Order: sequence, then C-alpha cells, then structure tokens
Amino acid sequence: MAEIAPKILAFDVFGTVVDWHGSIAAEVAQLFPEVDGDAFALAWREGYKPAMARVMSGELGWTRIDDLHRMILDDILPRFGLGALPENERRALNRVWHRLNAWPDSVEGLTRLKRRHTICTLSNGNIGLLTDMAKHAGLPWDCVLSAEVFRAYKPDPRTYLGVADVFDVAPAEVMLVAAHQDDLAAARQCGLLTAYIERPHEFGAARPKDVSPDPANTLHARDFIDLAEQLGL
Amino acid sequence: MAEIAPKILAFDVFGTVVDWHGSIAAEVAQLFPEVDGDAFALAWREGYKPAMARVMSGELGWTRIDDLHRMILDDILPRFGLGALPENERRALNRVWHRLNAWPDSVEGLTRLKRRHTICTLSNGNIGLLTDMAKHAGLPWDCVLSAEVFRAYKPDPRTYLGVADVFDVAPAEVMLVAAHQDDLAAARQCGLLTAYIERPHEFGAARPKDVSPDPANTLHARDFIDLAEQLGL
Repeated sequence: MAEIAPKILAFDVFGTVVDWHGSIAAEVAQLFPEVDGDAFALAWREGYKPAMARVMSGELGWTRIDDLHRMILDDILPRFGLGALPENERRALNRVWHRLNAWPDSVEGLTRLKRRHTICTLSNGNIGLLTDMAKHAGLPWDCVLSAEVFRAYKPDPRTYLGVADVFDVAPAEVMLVAAHQDDLAAARQCGLLTAYIERPHEFGAARPKDVSPDPANTLHARDFIDLAEQLGL
Repeated sequence: MAEIAPKILAFDVFGTVVDWHGSIAAEVAQLFPEVDGDAFALAWREGYKPAMARVMSGELGWTRIDDLHRMILDDILPRFGLGALPENERRALNRVWHRLNAWPDSVEGLTRLKRRHTICTLSNGNIGLLTDMAKHAGLPWDCVLSAEVFRAYKPDPRTYLGVADVFDVAPAEVMLVAAHQDDLAAARQCGLLTAYIERPHEFGAARPKDVSPDPANTLHARDFIDLAEQLGL
C-alpha cells in the first residue's frame, strides 16, 4: 500500500464527509414534530440530481446548490403540510445544508491525512456552503474546491481535471475519495486514483446501502481512519 | 470598536500575511552566495504589476501568478548573472513563492480572528500557490479565495464583490485586511470595510515603508494581534 502516494486527496462531501440524512432528519423532526424527518430528508435530496441536470442541460443558467436546494425545498414543503412556511423560516431551513454534522471518524481521519497530503473538497456544494460547514463541523481542509470554481457539476470531467490543474499535477497524482461509485468511476475515466469509503447509513440506519468493493478502485476503506492507515498515516 | 463586526475577513497575502521580501532574499542568498538576494527579491516583485496589467489589458490571456512569476524570473535571471540556470532549477526557484514565511504575528492573529469570523484569502496568487503556502506556514484559512476564482486580478471590483457574493453577504459585511492603501481604497469603492496593517519592513529592513494611517480605513492596526484586539477577540 505504501507505494500509493497521491499528492492531493479530493473529497466528495455530502454523504462521504458529512451525514446529510441524519442531520436534516434531526433538524426537521425538532422544528416540526408532526413531520417525518427521515422522509423529508430523502425527498429533499432526491430533487438534487434532477435539479443539477437542468443546469447542465442549459435549461437553467449556472445556479449554486444553495439556490437549487431552495427550489427543491419550495417544491416539497406542501407535500409535508408546510406550504404556508414563511420566507424567513424557509431561508433558515435551507441553511441546514451549511451545518451538516460530520461522520464520527471524519475530523480525526482528515487531520491524519492532512499531515502528508493536501486535502481539499471536490463537491457540487458551493464555496460558501462548504466553508460554513467546515467551520461548523471542524473539518480541517487545506482548500475548499467546488463545482462553483469550475462552473460545472460532477461528474463533468472539468471538475476532476480541474483539481489536477489547480495544483499543477498529473491526474494520477490526485485521488478522489467518495462514498459513491458513480462519482469514482467518472474520476477514474479522467485518470484520477480513487478510494471508496463505506457509508452504509448514508440514507439512514433503516435503509442500509450496498457497500461492496469495486475492484476498479485504487483503495476501499471502511472510513477515513482506515484510509489513513492504508496510506501509511 | 465592538460594533464593527464584519462576517468575513478577506486578507491580502503577499506582504500582508507573509514576508515575500525576506523569504526570497534569504533563499536566493543561500542558493547563489554571489547574488544580492535583496535586489533580486525587489526586481522579481517589480515585474508583478506590469505583468498583471498585460493580462488585464487582454494582451495576455488569463494567466496564473505562477506563470507570471516564471516569465519575470526568466527576464531577470541574466541581470543577476544567472542566465544559464537550467530549467529544473528555474522551476524549483519559481516555487519559492509557495513557501514564503509568515510574519511573526500571522498565525496567532489569524487563529484568534478565526474564532468569530470567517477568514479567507483574497490574493492575486493562484489557488495552488496559496494552498501550498498555507501548509508551509501553518495559516489556518477557512477558505482560499483567489483572483483565479474570479478570473480577474485586484483591484478589479469583481474580486472584492466576488467575496461578498460567494458568502451571500452584503459588501459592508466583508472587511479587506491589507498592508497596501491602494488595495484598500479599491475595496472601499466597492462598499467593503477596510483594515490597514502596518508592515514597515515589507521591502526589507533597510527600506522602511510609510505606514501612516489613512482615516478613510475602518481600522488601522499594527499587526494581526492588534487587529484581533480591536475587534474584541
């Protein structure tokens, strides 16, 4: 394992570093005891890929995730009996994505990985969202990179190749770390190394996810501490 | 003073956070004992504004500071008797801008300011350069913002207003912190708050700089620790 020494570790964030489902379900359940927080979190996230597809197809101009999250929120509120929620409460609720909680191993794992590698985000989340989240959750990024910098969402090759370009390294000197095989496959197509992270409860404890290894990945790790150990840190 | 509470503190970097002159003069003097490191550092930096002007006028396409530094380096080497320096040594020397040393108060001051504010760079340096520098010097940025994100160099308004836009705040909720009155004046024109930092030895101990206060700035501070104290941190 010691021979695998990427210079840059680029991390997917939602689901890989932070527990979006658990954080949103808990906040919604606290704010609105009558609402099913679990279903609410899933519905909000389900709108995410279709919304990005509208941007990438050109139907919408460049739009930040903050604004996509808000469009989806406005769309789902009536389904949960919250269609009358006032503007200021919608704005505040939309900011829940800025204060998602990290998985228990994230801060320790990132801190170890940072000792030798440059650790950055590579998320479709916007810069302001990712920066607020890092302050909230104590994530020690060396650099916050986002779809917003490259004006393209993953899995567009401009995002993966953009990381290599920003740091003036070859694609094979960058490793994408993610809990999603489709993200990793797209990065691999661009020549990046890939590390899959098991996050079996990304969609909630009641809905365990398939976390089987794909031999196409460079590494397969249980969590960030396991990844640090596999990289000799 | 306690009423002044910007959400975002955006820092100029070269000269404000790090001692480019001392770092470069020392490295050059060590590598080439026959060369005047002080004069070399000044000559390299003197090429900086004219090179950026060539980009902003459209004569050059968008060019990163790393590449501008290299063009200037190639230009000045013969003047210092180093016209025969091989390519690999030119590349290594050009990276000195990635390993500039912080002023003695920078890390402590930033760490205190970070407790309440979001602290980010707003530098004409490229993202990779600023990230390497932060790792080298231990600078605890929440976020690395750069001319590279906005595809414009300071003093272009897109850079100052870009910070407010990234964090979805009003310009008056951002404070630019810099050791250069022209940078601060341009930020003020865009509605930002401004804090001047005295760096009397930016151009070397032998060449003290005028650090008189300009009453147009929101704050005038000796260094980052003084700034933290004035902001109640």
